[in-house]
Formats: sequence, structure tokens, C-alpha cells
Amino acid sequence: MNYYGNPMTKLIEELAALPGIGGKSAQRLAFHIIQMPKEKVEALSAAILEAKENVRYCSVCCNLTEEEVCPVCANPKRNHKTIMVVEDPRDMAAYERTKEFHGVYHVLHGAISPMTGVTPQDIHIRELVSRMDDSVEEVILATNPNVEGEATAMYIARLLKPLGVKVTRIANGVPVGGDLEYVDEITLSRALEGRREL
Amino acid sequence: MNYYGNPMTKLIEELAALPGIGGKSAQRLAFHIIQMPKEKVEALSAAILEAKENVRYCSVCCNLTEEEVCPVCANPKRNHKTIMVVEDPRDMAAYERTKEFHGVYHVLHGAISPMTGVTPQDIHIRELVSRMDDSVEEVILATNPNVEGEATAMYIARLLKPLGVKVTRIANGVPVGGDLEYVDEITLSRALEGRREL
Repeated sequence: MNYYGNPMTKLIEELAALPGIGGKSAQRLAFHIIQMPKEKVEALSAAILEAKENVRYCSVCCNLTEEEVCPVCANPKRNHKTIMVVEDPRDMAAYERTKEFHGVYHVLHGAISPMTGVTPQDIHIRELVSRMDDSVEEVILATNPNVEGEATAMYIARLLKPLGVKVTRIANGVPVGGDLEYVDEITLSRALEGRREL
Repeated sequence: MNYYGNPMTKLIEELAALPGIGGKSAQRLAFHIIQMPKEKVEALSAAILEAKENVRYCSVCCNLTEEEVCPVCANPKRNHKTIMVVEDPRDMAAYERTKEFHGVYHVLHGAISPMTGVTPQDIHIRELVSRMDDSVEEVILATNPNVEGEATAMYIARLLKPLGVKVTRIANGVPVGGDLEYVDEITLSRALEGRREL
């Protein structure tokens, strides 16, 4: 199968090992890369190395950062009494885009999942517990609204409540802009349960 | 939008600039890359640079290679009197996989396309013409069976025939293993035209 020479075959193999990139895509990407200007190729290669070398977990919230403490945790204007627990840095970014949450975060990097063998010890729950002191007023559980996320939320709630901290969960309900007709039954029931007086 | 720190944002940008990789895929790839073992990341980064630096065109057939001459052209067991003209190194690889062709190749790196402004000067036709000497017995035009490929084949045929070389075109017809019902009309007509006595 080595029709294009070793460096090309090696590149195709490396690209094909990435998630969501099959053999054909890897080939197309490799052909694109060798036709890119040299500076662009060097920038891509360097960006890969630099991300791996310089990205680490924030020592407070486990978010990705290049510093010891991430910009959110280091920001004195944020409300450090309210901690939102998310599964993934991408979930944190999603909430940051809303510009509605002014507290700080805790990134678990996963959810408890007996199916795939992820135990509470495999995600950053310990680090969350060690953040609990008298200054913390509320922990908002914003794990995903699926089986693993719910299980993780339940687990954390049971762990933190005895410590006397207020633990809340983000609301289930119909998504804004959607059409009721297409919303599943469980979501509709949750939306009814969670109804508010206007 | 810089929620993950600069190295991560830079990597996401570089990945998103590749063809077929959107913002979401780039993010997913970047998260995967920083979680890969260090050796794998270094291998990926190095493979990109090495492919760009060491891959060049074969001085005979314009195929991709790391040597001055590609393995096919350098192979004395191949029939150097028969040259198959393809648009792309991937087309060459496709014919190599058949193991049915024992001649050599010429890679055009494109096809004539007035629509996108690709002229005969933009692809490696000149190099093909300069390969024509008394030893060449047949040139098989295996450009793609679409408008650009046909136009390119016609152009090359008109260029080479006056030089006294036999110029052929690969057959159009129904693909093996297909279902006649789903084959388009033009292919069916071509298959009829090209019928052979058994």
C-alpha cells in the first residue's frame, strides 16, 4: 500500500489514527497538507506540539489552561461562592457564551459510567470536594441531561449535601425556539413538573 | 472565544483550516490530541513536517516520492513502453491495487478545467510530451470519466497522435457488481457501444 513513499504513508497513518478520520479523509488531508505553503505546515505541526506541551489543568477547577490557574478562577470579579460543575471544558465554554453565569466552574472531565467502566475515582470529583469550605454557597450541577450525567449529579449531590452546601441542578424543560410537537415525552413531563408561576 | 487558553485555541484554528474539518470537528480533534500520549503527539507533528519536507515529484512521471525517481519508474521489471496517464497519485494507487497494469504512469496533478481556470499549462502535460521517444509504444489515458477528464484526454490525444504514438482511452461501461437498474443512461449507452463478442 506504500504507493506515495514513506513520509506520505506515515502521515496518512498518523492522521487516520485520529477520531472521526477514516482512511480516505486521512489521504485527502495528507494531500492537502503537502500542498500547503511551508509556513502553514510548520504552524500546524508546532500548534500540535505546543498544545500538548503547554495545556494543563487549572489547579483550582481542572479547566484547561496554560497558566497555573485558569483565567476564570483567577478573575476576582467572578463570584467564587458559586461553583458550576460541568463534565467537559466544552460545556464550560457553552455556559461562558451565554454570559449569564458569573460564578466559577469545576470541570470533571467525564461522567460516572458503569457501562464504560468510568468510576467516581476516574473523574475530578475529589478535587471538587476539596474545594468545599465555608465560603462556598452553592454548587450548581450542570452535567449532561443523560443517564451518565444524571448519575454523576446524584452522586455528587449525596457527597456534598452532608457538608452543608446548597446543591442545585440545572432545569430540564423544552428548549427555547423548539416546537413542542417534536419534543420527547420525558422532556415534556419534566417541563410540566418544573412549571413556574408568571 | 478563548476559553481554553492560547495554545489550544491556536491548535483548533489550525485544524479548522484543513479541508472537511469544521469548527466542531477541530475542537474534538484538539481535545483528542492533548489527551494522546506525548510520543504519539510528537509522531503526528513530525509526520506532518516530514511529509512536507521530503515528498516531491518523481522526475520522470510526477508521482509523489521521497527519491529522485519513484519506485515504479525505477523498477526495471515494469514495462516502460506503456504509459498510463492519470490525474492524481490516488488514481495511480487505485490502478496499482488492481495488480493488472505492469506499465508505468504519468501523473498530471489535475485536469483541464476552463470553469475553474485550470489550463493545459497548469498540469504536467509538458512533462508527458517530453517523455515521448521511439521506445514508447502506447499511452493509455486514464483520466476521470467526467467532463474535465474527457477534455484532458482529448487534448492529450490530439497532442500525442501526430508524434506517431498509439493513444488509447480506458473503457466506459457498467461497473462490475452493480445493478443495471441503477446505472445512468450515459453509462448504459457507452456499455452498449463498447460491447465485445464473446
